[in-house]
Amino acid sequence: MFLTRTEYDRGVNTFSPEGRLFQVEYAIEAIKLGSTAIGLKTKEGVVLAVEKRITSPLLEPSSVEKVMEIDEHIGCAMSGLIADARTLVEHARVETQNHRFSYGEPMTVESTTQALCDLALRFGEGDEESMSRPFGVSLLIAGHDEHGPSLYYTDPSGTFWQCNAKAIGSGSEGADSTLQEQYNKDLTLKEAEAIALSILKQVMEEKVTPNNVDIAKVAPTYHLYTPAEVEEVISRL
Amino acid sequence: MFLTRTEYDRGVNTFSPEGRLFQVEYAIEAIKLGSTAIGLKTKEGVVLAVEKRITSPLLEPSSVEKVMEIDEHIGCAMSGLIADARTLVEHARVETQNHRFSYGEPMTVESTTQALCDLALRFGEGDEESMSRPFGVSLLIAGHDEHGPSLYYTDPSGTFWQCNAKAIGSGSEGADSTLQEQYNKDLTLKEAEAIALSILKQVMEEKVTPNNVDIAKVAPTYHLYTPAEVEEVISRL
Amino acid sequence: MFLTRTEYDRGVNTFSPEGRLFQVEYAIEAIKLGSTAIGLKTKEGVVLAVEKRITSPLLEPSSVEKVMEIDEHIGCAMSGLIADARTLVEHARVETQNHRFSYGEPMTVESTTQALCDLALRFGEGDEESMSRPFGVSLLIAGHDEHGPSLYYTDPSGTFWQCNAKAIGSGSEGADSTLQEQYNKDLTLKEAEAIALSILKQVMEEKVTPNNVDIAKVAPTYHLYTPAEVEEVISRL
Amino acid sequence: MFLTRTEYDRGVNTFSPEGRLFQVEYAIEAIKLGSTAIGLKTKEGVVLAVEKRITSPLLEPSSVEKVMEIDEHIGCAMSGLIADARTLVEHARVETQNHRFSYGEPMTVESTTQALCDLALRFGEGDEESMSRPFGVSLLIAGHDEHGPSLYYTDPSGTFWQCNAKAIGSGSEGADSTLQEQYNKDLTLKEAEAIALSILKQVMEEKVTPNNVDIAKVAPTYHLYTPAEVEEVISRL
Amino acid sequence: MFLTRTEYDRGVNTFSPEGRLFQVEYAIEAIKLGSTAIGLKTKEGVVLAVEKRITSPLLEPSSVEKVMEIDEHIGCAMSGLIADARTLVEHARVETQNHRFSYGEPMTVESTTQALCDLALRFGEGDEESMSRPFGVSLLIAGHDEHGPSLYYTDPSGTFWQCNAKAIGSGSEGADSTLQEQYNKDLTLKEAEAIALSILKQVMEEKVTPNNVDIAKVAPTYHLYTPAEVEEVISRL
Amino acid sequence: MFLTRTEYDRGVNTFSPEGRLFQVEYAIEAIKLGSTAIGLKTKEGVVLAVEKRITSPLLEPSSVEKVMEIDEHIGCAMSGLIADARTLVEHARVETQNHRFSYGEPMTVESTTQALCDLALRFGEGDEESMSRPFGVSLLIAGHDEHGPSLYYTDPSGTFWQCNAKAIGSGSEGADSTLQEQYNKDLTLKEAEAIALSILKQVMEEKVTPNNVDIAKVAPTYHLYTPAEVEEVISRL
Amino acid sequence: MFLTRTEYDRGVNTFSPEGRLFQVEYAIEAIKLGSTAIGLKTKEGVVLAVEKRITSPLLEPSSVEKVMEIDEHIGCAMSGLIADARTLVEHARVETQNHRFSYGEPMTVESTTQALCDLALRFGEGDEESMSRPFGVSLLIAGHDEHGPSLYYTDPSGTFWQCNAKAIGSGSEGADSTLQEQYNKDLTLKEAEAIALSILKQVMEEKVTPNNVDIAKVAPTYHLYTPAEVEEVISRL
Repeated sequence: MFLTRTEYDRGVNTFSPEGRLFQVEYAIEAIKLGSTAIGLKTKEGVVLAVEKRITSPLLEPSSVEKVMEIDEHIGCAMSGLIADARTLVEHARVETQNHRFSYGEPMTVESTTQALCDLALRFGEGDEESMSRPFGVSLLIAGHDEHGPSLYYTDPSGTFWQCNAKAIGSGSEGADSTLQEQYNKDLTLKEAEAIALSILKQVMEEKVTPNNVDIAKVAPTYHLYTPAEVEEVISRL
Repeated sequence: MFLTRTEYDRGVNTFSPEGRLFQVEYAIEAIKLGSTAIGLKTKEGVVLAVEKRITSPLLEPSSVEKVMEIDEHIGCAMSGLIADARTLVEHARVETQNHRFSYGEPMTVESTTQALCDLALRFGEGDEESMSRPFGVSLLIAGHDEHGPSLYYTDPSGTFWQCNAKAIGSGSEGADSTLQEQYNKDLTLKEAEAIALSILKQVMEEKVTPNNVDIAKVAPTYHLYTPAEVEEVISRL
Repeated sequence: MFLTRTEYDRGVNTFSPEGRLFQVEYAIEAIKLGSTAIGLKTKEGVVLAVEKRITSPLLEPSSVEKVMEIDEHIGCAMSGLIADARTLVEHARVETQNHRFSYGEPMTVESTTQALCDLALRFGEGDEESMSRPFGVSLLIAGHDEHGPSLYYTDPSGTFWQCNAKAIGSGSEGADSTLQEQYNKDLTLKEAEAIALSILKQVMEEKVTPNNVDIAKVAPTYHLYTPAEVEEVISRL
Repeated sequence: MFLTRTEYDRGVNTFSPEGRLFQVEYAIEAIKLGSTAIGLKTKEGVVLAVEKRITSPLLEPSSVEKVMEIDEHIGCAMSGLIADARTLVEHARVETQNHRFSYGEPMTVESTTQALCDLALRFGEGDEESMSRPFGVSLLIAGHDEHGPSLYYTDPSGTFWQCNAKAIGSGSEGADSTLQEQYNKDLTLKEAEAIALSILKQVMEEKVTPNNVDIAKVAPTYHLYTPAEVEEVISRL
Repeated sequence: MFLTRTEYDRGVNTFSPEGRLFQVEYAIEAIKLGSTAIGLKTKEGVVLAVEKRITSPLLEPSSVEKVMEIDEHIGCAMSGLIADARTLVEHARVETQNHRFSYGEPMTVESTTQALCDLALRFGEGDEESMSRPFGVSLLIAGHDEHGPSLYYTDPSGTFWQCNAKAIGSGSEGADSTLQEQYNKDLTLKEAEAIALSILKQVMEEKVTPNNVDIAKVAPTYHLYTPAEVEEVISRL
Repeated sequence: MFLTRTEYDRGVNTFSPEGRLFQVEYAIEAIKLGSTAIGLKTKEGVVLAVEKRITSPLLEPSSVEKVMEIDEHIGCAMSGLIADARTLVEHARVETQNHRFSYGEPMTVESTTQALCDLALRFGEGDEESMSRPFGVSLLIAGHDEHGPSLYYTDPSGTFWQCNAKAIGSGSEGADSTLQEQYNKDLTLKEAEAIALSILKQVMEEKVTPNNVDIAKVAPTYHLYTPAEVEEVISRL
Repeated sequence: MFLTRTEYDRGVNTFSPEGRLFQVEYAIEAIKLGSTAIGLKTKEGVVLAVEKRITSPLLEPSSVEKVMEIDEHIGCAMSGLIADARTLVEHARVETQNHRFSYGEPMTVESTTQALCDLALRFGEGDEESMSRPFGVSLLIAGHDEHGPSLYYTDPSGTFWQCNAKAIGSGSEGADSTLQEQYNKDLTLKEAEAIALSILKQVMEEKVTPNNVDIAKVAPTYHLYTPAEVEEVISRL
């Protein structure tokens, strides 16, 4: 007989008898505790929308950043441990700038995503840049390059997928179902904004305001919506 | 079934099955044992006020430093392990001086905060400057730069938030409630001084005197109040 | 008396009293959880076919890559942890490019396979490129060199074998039986395509479509089938 | 429920659920086993007095050094593990000499104290000069610089405080009470000598002689009292 | 009283109270799970014969290599973990080539064996080339140098012996008895071939064919028998 | 409640709740198992006398070295693990030679002792010269420099004391009492020799002979007594 | 109360409460499992004789080397783990060659023994040449230098003694008694040969033959006896 699973789940890089890596699975749990983020790809560009948990009225909402620019043609939304996400984003910013410097052209969205995942996979290896545990964060990476708009989803294991639409964080399960019902490839960017925000509205327990959500688009460059622009989307719901 | 939480809480960088990092959470507990510190942002500048625990009448009150200057436009108040805080402040001082030297201009308050949090996040990584455990300290970082006055709050996980007002340390819970009631964006610096001190008065079990509190402001440069200046604020309560 | 096996199975590199290395065996289990992949060698070239698990209709099927090109004369199919496989493939791509650069000729398929396995064997050694655990992935490596077409199979222990036909992943047991019945050395490439896909059809619980399988061949260069080409093979079943 | 405290107290740098670092607290206990040392600051200078435990009549009393010179304007008294104290003092001596060499002026007493505490804080970090456990020693650092006389007290956590008077070691509790009763800022150096020695007399179980106590002053330079000078102070009691 | 042996057998390099190194003993067990290999020394040269376990009819028999050339005058047969054996053989190939390059003459068989064993002994030392566990493989090293033909046997402890005839692997016990009965120093190479194969025939549960055995000789250079040559030996049984 | 002491005594550098370092205390126990050594300081010089345990009549008594020369003006007697003592002595020999080379004068006895203790204190630090456990040895260091004759005593914690007379090893308790009765500062070297040997006679269970004791003096240079000289001292008892 | 000894005996370098290092003691046990070796010093030179365990008639007796040459004036016999002994001997060979090269004269027997023991003592230190466990071997080192013939005995703790005669290995207890009865300083080399062999004859369970014993002498250079020379000694018994 095997030991119960609990005997295999603390070694950072130990396989259980069924071939599972529990520390990675637990890092994935960290994301299920995080705020919800949603991404939708349209022909006109990609929309990212995130819930911001403002735990105190004295917090400056704009300092709760869960959507960030990586390069002018790439942005990302995140859920999980924000400090971990900042490390990954900072790494990606350096990579994309290096690429521009070396090749005189923007890095593709897929290469940028791959670079992020290479760092995520290296946890526990002890080299200079890597972490001693899995990164406790998922990212939705939105970008626009020679292949047009694209949306990628990464998890703590260092794996990534390309998606048309995806939700991450505590409300992701319900949000994904709604996305499957409402998504189609011919959505306009305006329609995608409205879908994303209406889903966030469902999963959040309070009224949606420019204070507790952020919206960004890459179409074809990264733009974080101003409070007035967010208000305009809310008004359309 | 999972093991009880106590099986996951000693590895510096081990996720529990629910995706939690207990050593970081325990470091946060270290701060709840610390003395209370309060920050308020006004249009005229930022006020920091801290409780100083003078355990013996033979202690030199001025040597119990819980408010420190980082650069001439940035100061910080701290709660938790003071030796850890000194390491972070020393790191920030070097960073801001390097920035001035390299770019001929002061570092922004947000960049300084980010630099502090990068160091805080790297615990357990084994490189030269980082600690082998989380830093057991929270900081309130007050500054003034091209964006005007700002107040940041950091915790041991390496995360930071921008706030209008914030309390940390053992009395933070009650202090935060009072701040939410009394804070508004049109406070004058003089009013903010009085609010901060009146809250400290509530949480401290002894009479407030220039010996057991420190006040500092960044408006627009860092200034630590003299005993006479503190006495003046006390007299206004 | 010995301890039960469970006492020996967490050390990355610890022999049990019977001389077994359990962490390698558990990594092999990781592959039994993976999607099924099939390879067949014919005189005209080698065919690789893989099941793609599209867990959501919003996933971009082309981003679920389980067949990859290593060099223009070598490709591979994989089952297990995809992020691990990407590390191995990236290593092999660098090795084959280095070989071309140094010797002005393509690397043989066997040397490429040996290079992959050298990296896989080095886990737990702490040097720069190796992992701190076994790679949780099996590969089917298809290639064509001066010795004609060849198909190799690797497992997490760093061992490899040359095969005429082989299946890996969760459906491998049944698939291998069918392969033994249907394989013969005189198969045409077209027949091999059909056999591979008909076996995948058996092990997958849904209808086979260009969205949930990928086919590639090395004959004599690597080619990933377009959806139309996959559709054509499906139509022949 | 948490584990009992005993589960958290052996990791050199592990927080307990209440945010405590037990190995540091136990190092502080090491000092409570140590001999008593007393410091008093007067306007004329600082007095240090220590108990010397002469376990055998064959021991050379002068070789039991518990008061040491750091630089000509700084001295220190110690309690706890003497070998640890020597390492700290040696480090401070190098720092103060380097400072003189680099800047052509003596290092301030506070900077010297900070340098000592930086080393004390770095335990468990694995770099070249630091220890793998907390330093089991407390120091009373007496000095005289441009700010006049000063007295600092350090503990194993790397924290320091400025004091007017302070006792450390096994008799510190009673000694501190007496100091609070008898200390005032207008004491002469002669009175301070007498107070220090009368307190040591209380905590020591044997007669005070030049053999079992040491006295030193920094006024404004370091001076270790000769047996005759000690005898003179004793005669005044 | 001592603990039971099971308390000492997981540390890679821990002596038990009786002075045993269990991890080495367990590695020796790994070999008892391996396929059988046999070596015989004659005046005309050395014969190696190995059982090849072809687990599937789709495996390419020639890719199951259990006899390998080290240099043109040295070959070896192996039993145990094949990936480990490849590392040792690769090391020996580099050593023998280096020797030829440095000294302009072939390395002796004993020096080659010693070089292999030096690497095997260094496990757990953490240097660049060594493993973090014992090598789980035994080798029969056949060679011909200025001292004539010779046959060496190595085990995972890094010890080696020179033999006239030796069997390793799962069938070694019975095979060694038969060798002792049938071996004499005047055997011809042809007789040695027949003895080796007749013993393999006893220990294998299936019919001996050119597919499931390999034969090689060093007489005086290494030669791996073609299927026809193997068939010829089989026909003589 | 605390754990029993046994929970804290295996970590090389772990404080127990009472602030004790048990591994150092156990190393001190190692010395209580050792042979007895005695040192006496006189105005004419220092005498060292040691018991030599000759476990077999076939052992060469002169090869059991428990008194060694460090430099021409310094010698030492040892008790505990002899191989550890050799490492310390070798270190001291290099230090004293370096000192002569750099400064053109002999190293003082105190500096030499300090250098030995610095090495002893660094155990468990992982740097190049230090041990991974405390040195299990005590030394009596006899020397003569510009301050006249001196005798130091070191223990495994890296602490040292200057003494007039001291005994170490298994018979040290009784020997120390006798020394306190018989020692006075006006002893001649000849009297000191006789006292040392008469005490050894008490603690040894066999007859004292030139074979089972060694005597050395530093007066002012190191001299190891010949068997005849030892015999002469014995005859005076 | 202390834990039972079994709690202290697995750390490579951990003192037990009584000051013992159990891993060294267990390594010494490894030698008690080894074959018997005997050394005798005479005025004409030193004789070494060892038992060779020939476990199979197919083993080449000359390849079971338990007596080895270190330099032309030094040889050694060994008992315990032979692979460990080879590492020590190889180290000694390099040291003695370096000495000849640097100083133009042979290394003394004592220096050679000291060099061997320095390496043996360094186990567990993690530097390049040392082992991660004690060397499980004892050596009898026979040599001849400017001081005439000498015989040293080393054990796994890195300690060494000079002897007139000594036995090691499984039969050492009885052999040492016999040596004490029969040894005297006036033995001729021929007599010593006969004594050594007659003792081996007692401890071995089979007939003594040139196949199962080896004899060597250093008189004044190393010489390993030929089978004929061994036969001659046997005939004299």
